[in-house]
Amino acid sequence: MNDMEKRTCRGFRFSGMAAGIKKKQAKDLALIVSDVPASVAGVFTRNRIQAAPVLLDRQRVRSGRCQAVIVNSGNANCCTGDAGMRDAASMARHAAVALGIQEDLVCVASTGVIGQPMPIDAVVAAVPALAAALSSDGIDQVAEAIMTTDLVPKVVRHRAEMGGVPYTIMGVAKGSGMIRPDMATMLCFVVTDIAASPALLQETLAAAVDRSFNRITVDGDTSTNDTVLLMAGGGSAAAAGTPEEKRAFQAALDEVLIRLAKMVVKDGEGATKLVEIAVVGAASAEEARKAADTVAHSNLVKTALFGEDANWGRIIAAAGRSGIPVAPDAIDILFDDVMMCRNGMTCGDAAEKAATAVLKKSEYRITIDLHMGEAQASVFTCDFSIDYVKINADYRS
Amino acid sequence: MNDMEKRTCRGFRFSGMAAGIKKKQAKDLALIVSDVPASVAGVFTRNRIQAAPVLLDRQRVRSGRCQAVIVNSGNANCCTGDAGMRDAASMARHAAVALGIQEDLVCVASTGVIGQPMPIDAVVAAVPALAAALSSDGIDQVAEAIMTTDLVPKVVRHRAEMGGVPYTIMGVAKGSGMIRPDMATMLCFVVTDIAASPALLQETLAAAVDRSFNRITVDGDTSTNDTVLLMAGGGSAAAAGTPEEKRAFQAALDEVLIRLAKMVVKDGEGATKLVEIAVVGAASAEEARKAADTVAHSNLVKTALFGEDANWGRIIAAAGRSGIPVAPDAIDILFDDVMMCRNGMTCGDAAEKAATAVLKKSEYRITIDLHMGEAQASVFTCDFSIDYVKINADYRS
Repeated sequence: MNDMEKRTCRGFRFSGMAAGIKKKQAKDLALIVSDVPASVAGVFTRNRIQAAPVLLDRQRVRSGRCQAVIVNSGNANCCTGDAGMRDAASMARHAAVALGIQEDLVCVASTGVIGQPMPIDAVVAAVPALAAALSSDGIDQVAEAIMTTDLVPKVVRHRAEMGGVPYTIMGVAKGSGMIRPDMATMLCFVVTDIAASPALLQETLAAAVDRSFNRITVDGDTSTNDTVLLMAGGGSAAAAGTPEEKRAFQAALDEVLIRLAKMVVKDGEGATKLVEIAVVGAASAEEARKAADTVAHSNLVKTALFGEDANWGRIIAAAGRSGIPVAPDAIDILFDDVMMCRNGMTCGDAAEKAATAVLKKSEYRITIDLHMGEAQASVFTCDFSIDYVKINADYRS
Repeated sequence: MNDMEKRTCRGFRFSGMAAGIKKKQAKDLALIVSDVPASVAGVFTRNRIQAAPVLLDRQRVRSGRCQAVIVNSGNANCCTGDAGMRDAASMARHAAVALGIQEDLVCVASTGVIGQPMPIDAVVAAVPALAAALSSDGIDQVAEAIMTTDLVPKVVRHRAEMGGVPYTIMGVAKGSGMIRPDMATMLCFVVTDIAASPALLQETLAAAVDRSFNRITVDGDTSTNDTVLLMAGGGSAAAAGTPEEKRAFQAALDEVLIRLAKMVVKDGEGATKLVEIAVVGAASAEEARKAADTVAHSNLVKTALFGEDANWGRIIAAAGRSGIPVAPDAIDILFDDVMMCRNGMTCGDAAEKAATAVLKKSEYRITIDLHMGEAQASVFTCDFSIDYVKINADYRS
């Protein structure tokens, strides 16, 4: 395996292990460390209930600098009061001591059950071993350690050049339940060896999140712990200075986050389909987004997708209740290239047969043409299966 | 059986039969007829996509008078274009001919699959037999004929007195899928032998719907066909004239609609629980309503209810994303009288054990005290089960 194939990013090291937070000796604690203090940007949940590590990170990210992130799964450290805040700070402090770095350069993230005390002793006891296990190709350990109901670890590595100088963006994410726009509930940590200011990182990250995690939905709930952190260590000689370079960096980060976001939807709890809901011909981008969101969140639509049923009536009904003005007699609905509904009416049995064939695919697009204007928006969703209910009825037991 | 026990309402007759719209010779066509032109009021879906019968009824209800309603299940007559409008008018016309009454005194309602042509010939052929079968105690035939995925027919009869004169309010409803506020997706027909003006009926009905069908949710979708009609025939000598009489009539109608609404939630697709989400201590009634709606619609909350899991973290997280200001550290959450969360933190294992016992009941209340003010609001919801997905994945097949 040559360097190009390895999952590394110059200047960063990673580790993950089982600290005993989860019940079954599964990996549940991870560490991401930069060789030097990195520039950092963060995007966090808009839920009014915010977990202790989110409150801590919001403060720390303001400095624009971060050198390490310690993350646990199995416990959200949310609705845990003052003790929870002390526990989050303690996780950071112990990581800082083990790494020999400044305490306020450590961010913290947690995911899991809400409202249970953090088993902080188990975490503290595991930190030295976690630090000792750091390695440049350890990102897969992190991916595994941050999973909750995820079935697959999610890592994306992107190589590009800036002015002839190669650089890397590498991201790791978890999330399969509680995914919805504003923002998709999940944890995501992205590292890059480009050199960039915190301000540029924040601007680029906010735009990339809006184009990726804020365009996916699994079940319409938003978590208390959503966190996306982007660290730029400068290990490569590449820098995003000119407007053109900034656009190139934005495009590269967009690609990484969109790929991760699609992996999250595809791994949605119980999901068997990845479906793009594309609303076109809208009067404005905002209206397109509203209609796409409403269709993408409709349980009746999502159960029909699971049933491979070309039930376009549920789609048009969801668009109709999205709160935007629509002309019912103008709406077309397509499954990939198969027009199933034209001018608000069925295209008949042959179309339905062709549409049903599309619905049997694992990935496809549903296009809703409102014929009201030129604007468009897409949201990625998944189907809603029997397994979703099974997973979520039993989550804590 | 004496007259008090019979399901009748003086001056009204009812019938229901199998006309061949549904596949399996199930009842699918119903008729409700007043001996004389009755005062009428109507409340309809706010979905922008509206079925042909809804468009027809909106016009006809404006006259304030109605003598008959013809209803079918098995086909929504929605997204059916000009042909659908002709079919709705044709249903009314044939009913009028069979009954020997004015065509514009007949309202129409349909429920079932969207976007398929109405099998109008089958309906027209059945109308004479439907009219011939009318009887004063035929309301159960109507209840059965308007069912789609409902498991049980829903009829409520309420007897009261106005100034010493007895009168009756009797309602029939269908609905188990696609139920959400604004408004609960369903059909409901209420008849009364009181004498009342159309204006009084409209005011009273709108208020009663807001207290009943707009406070229930099954799956967050809103139909294209929602219709509530109230007809007052005046067969009793009772009249609501004084302010006090009007209040009494409002209270009686509220009770009928709330009882029907709870029956709808309890019969929600796959539902095993009827749960009241009560938000108290809110800064305003509007904020209380927003928080209660968000919790009542959360799939993660509803699957936890199905799993009989006292997962209050999902409840507080849903309240936190409802868009209203909350003080996380001030929130209490109770399952019936068991406090599970105080000041935003768990009340521990003993509380959880007691809460789990409440969750095993088929009906209970979850109270969320925001400690922000004095306002409150309740929404009735059900759990979200494996059967919901099964029912809705297979609905059209």
